[in-house]
Amino acid sequence: MSKEMALCAFDMNCVGHQSQGLWRHPRDRSSEYHSMKYWQDLACTLERGLFDGIFLADVTGLYDVYGKSPDAALRAAVQVPTNDPFTIVPAMAAVTKHLSFGVTGSIPYEMPYTFARLMSSLDHLTEGRIGWNIVTGYLDSAAKGAGKKKKEAHDTRYDIAYEYMQVVYRLWEESWEEGAVVRDRDSGVFTDPSKVHQIDHKGEYFELHAVHLCEPSPQRTPVLFQAGTSSKGQAFAGGHAECVFIGGETPEGQAKSVKALREQAVAHGRDANDLKIFASISVVVAPTDKEAEEKLADYMQYGSHEGALALLSGWTGFDFSTLDPDATVEQTKSDAIQSVLAAHGFSTVREWSTNLMVGGVGHVLVGSPQSVADQLQNWFEVSGLDGFNLTRTVTPECFEDFVDLVVPELQERGIYKRSYQPGSFREKLFGKSGRLSKPHPAVEYRK
Amino acid sequence: MSKEMALCAFDMNCVGHQSQGLWRHPRDRSSEYHSMKYWQDLACTLERGLFDGIFLADVTGLYDVYGKSPDAALRAAVQVPTNDPFTIVPAMAAVTKHLSFGVTGSIPYEMPYTFARLMSSLDHLTEGRIGWNIVTGYLDSAAKGAGKKKKEAHDTRYDIAYEYMQVVYRLWEESWEEGAVVRDRDSGVFTDPSKVHQIDHKGEYFELHAVHLCEPSPQRTPVLFQAGTSSKGQAFAGGHAECVFIGGETPEGQAKSVKALREQAVAHGRDANDLKIFASISVVVAPTDKEAEEKLADYMQYGSHEGALALLSGWTGFDFSTLDPDATVEQTKSDAIQSVLAAHGFSTVREWSTNLMVGGVGHVLVGSPQSVADQLQNWFEVSGLDGFNLTRTVTPECFEDFVDLVVPELQERGIYKRSYQPGSFREKLFGKSGRLSKPHPAVEYRK
Repeated sequence: MSKEMALCAFDMNCVGHQSQGLWRHPRDRSSEYHSMKYWQDLACTLERGLFDGIFLADVTGLYDVYGKSPDAALRAAVQVPTNDPFTIVPAMAAVTKHLSFGVTGSIPYEMPYTFARLMSSLDHLTEGRIGWNIVTGYLDSAAKGAGKKKKEAHDTRYDIAYEYMQVVYRLWEESWEEGAVVRDRDSGVFTDPSKVHQIDHKGEYFELHAVHLCEPSPQRTPVLFQAGTSSKGQAFAGGHAECVFIGGETPEGQAKSVKALREQAVAHGRDANDLKIFASISVVVAPTDKEAEEKLADYMQYGSHEGALALLSGWTGFDFSTLDPDATVEQTKSDAIQSVLAAHGFSTVREWSTNLMVGGVGHVLVGSPQSVADQLQNWFEVSGLDGFNLTRTVTPECFEDFVDLVVPELQERGIYKRSYQPGSFREKLFGKSGRLSKPHPAVEYRK
Repeated sequence: MSKEMALCAFDMNCVGHQSQGLWRHPRDRSSEYHSMKYWQDLACTLERGLFDGIFLADVTGLYDVYGKSPDAALRAAVQVPTNDPFTIVPAMAAVTKHLSFGVTGSIPYEMPYTFARLMSSLDHLTEGRIGWNIVTGYLDSAAKGAGKKKKEAHDTRYDIAYEYMQVVYRLWEESWEEGAVVRDRDSGVFTDPSKVHQIDHKGEYFELHAVHLCEPSPQRTPVLFQAGTSSKGQAFAGGHAECVFIGGETPEGQAKSVKALREQAVAHGRDANDLKIFASISVVVAPTDKEAEEKLADYMQYGSHEGALALLSGWTGFDFSTLDPDATVEQTKSDAIQSVLAAHGFSTVREWSTNLMVGGVGHVLVGSPQSVADQLQNWFEVSGLDGFNLTRTVTPECFEDFVDLVVPELQERGIYKRSYQPGSFREKLFGKSGRLSKPHPAVEYRK
């Protein structure tokens, strides 16, 4: 049997997530992001297409590096305004049964005690359909919202993250033993106190002396997502993550990252397949190749260069407003920017920003259902990825098109499921227990 | 026309909220608190009964004063386990159109920047059906969960609260002007940056330099709830609150509190009726008085004295495990406890804890629909209250009984609405604008 491809939708509770400017397209509905119906309609579409999950990015700051101001980001709605990602999860869970939710929670801006409770509550409410994308924060503007001068240094952020994980694992896995909750109406004992433990943690960054507020949820620890590309980030992923996002422009290039990550898992005593590795991809599909090319050209008209540059400036910390948009690689003054442009094979800044207008960081596959399925299958097989994060272009049309046109093709080829597996998000993804198993570090804390 | 009574359900995302032990009753469903269906069923019942809202209490710590341990609270499920109250709001909003949500958010445990975003996001998602119950925290155990040694002193907590309100008002009211969001697909301008403002706040307790992450929501500032009984608390309510909860055992006693609170509002330059004042009440109703008394007796069998004492110990900070449960007022060693017992007219500790087993802090009205309506109408008219928080006993039966039996009686008497008003929570409650109006202090910050 062929390996089946995992699929998540990649989205954010905002207007312009990665494809800047496409909210202007007459059929785009992303400016309705603040309504419940928008998210519920999307969730139903994704469940119809047997998507494993919807993965929700988040930032808690503005993109204010471009022109040293947030004005460009505000004008083009580049990840601002942006609403809380957790609030839309119960709304989507209410109209679906299998679709899971990977939600970004930023360690610097969530206290571990109340954050652990939030995740447990959502895991209960969704009956085990919750994942957490662990991020350490990359915007100075977000740090300023939290009353800090700027974000912590990169390595320090990972030190904080390791300690944070220890605290939340102990709350999720150690505080309430299996069997602590007896719900015995006759004896009047709801919880057996001898099986509930206070967590005493006094570390460099956190101190806590408390019992977890929630009884064990279906998964206890939510499915752990991470997107680390630095060496510290890769090591963190190898040790802790269950799902990892990687970048990369070609399946061959990604094959190397996939191999390196699986080696990290093995180096941490885990199985190479304990990591599900995803890459972002966008798809523009229509009944024929020609129609798909026309659709792409139609979409491109609405893209916003300024919005794309505001996003790039926030990501890189380099102010692209200081450059001619048609500057060549050589004309950019930053070594870092030159190396990124070179790595992507772009000869000018404009090529890069144009690329971000449809599909964002991921590669864009364009064509008929057969042609897209060919490309996707080849990509999947060459890269050794476990699946893809489908990044939106014109939404929800892009997801509807994918579900209606591409999913049947993939099923026909035996590389995509025809029905959901039962159980929690973890059970669906790994076909194993709903709880983390050895040698994942969270398990050590279990009594 | 008679004044119409406002009604909220008073509940908490846990098993034993105020009526300790009643989860043991065969018809009680509160041990299903962690499921979506439980809350959605309740929301539908409340909307069928035209309830203005459901008010969700919360604590982020355990009741560990009794016997210097949380064991009694765990055994009897006294507000532990307890899930996050915000997560159930979108689930309930998804199946209702008018019911509003007053949610407890604890100032010490929510950073103002992300909390302001959470509330704006929920206000968007529910189309303006959100209220916030401002609490300053009363459990040392919650402070320990947040890494502090103990909670701040009472007066300091109010100083922090005043500064916190200033920060969140500025985010909700000042950061985005009216008309900032233009959503113009033709020009490509989503937001006019000249109408968006960074909030720079540097105070004694908080520092923040940031643009609010959300565009203006229907109400901007959520409807503000507060339950302050101390003089600092009453002054805070007079200045900031729109809805206030008060305690008290008799309508005559409450009339005095109502008058004092309205005077506080006037002293702050507001109208006496800018405050909606609620008191907790419980109702045990059946077709006849006799059946209602039998129902009460049936409920009482399931009450938990130990659970009630664990709750009382947490509320008062006095360890009731050190006393004979049948101790008389004189035998209690604490002046504070003696004065509370005397104020409630209890002659022993057991009378107090028994009282807490059905209905919690509120008075319990028992009888036929006519008899309950008589008592409620008299209470309403004598006290000058604007409405009641209906505290659960055996749930959801108590709410279903109230909706089926008492609501028609109140409607018949012209003191309860026959349909919802249109609009947001604030519009429904006050019949005015969905936004706060002068002279509420939040309005000062508006550009």
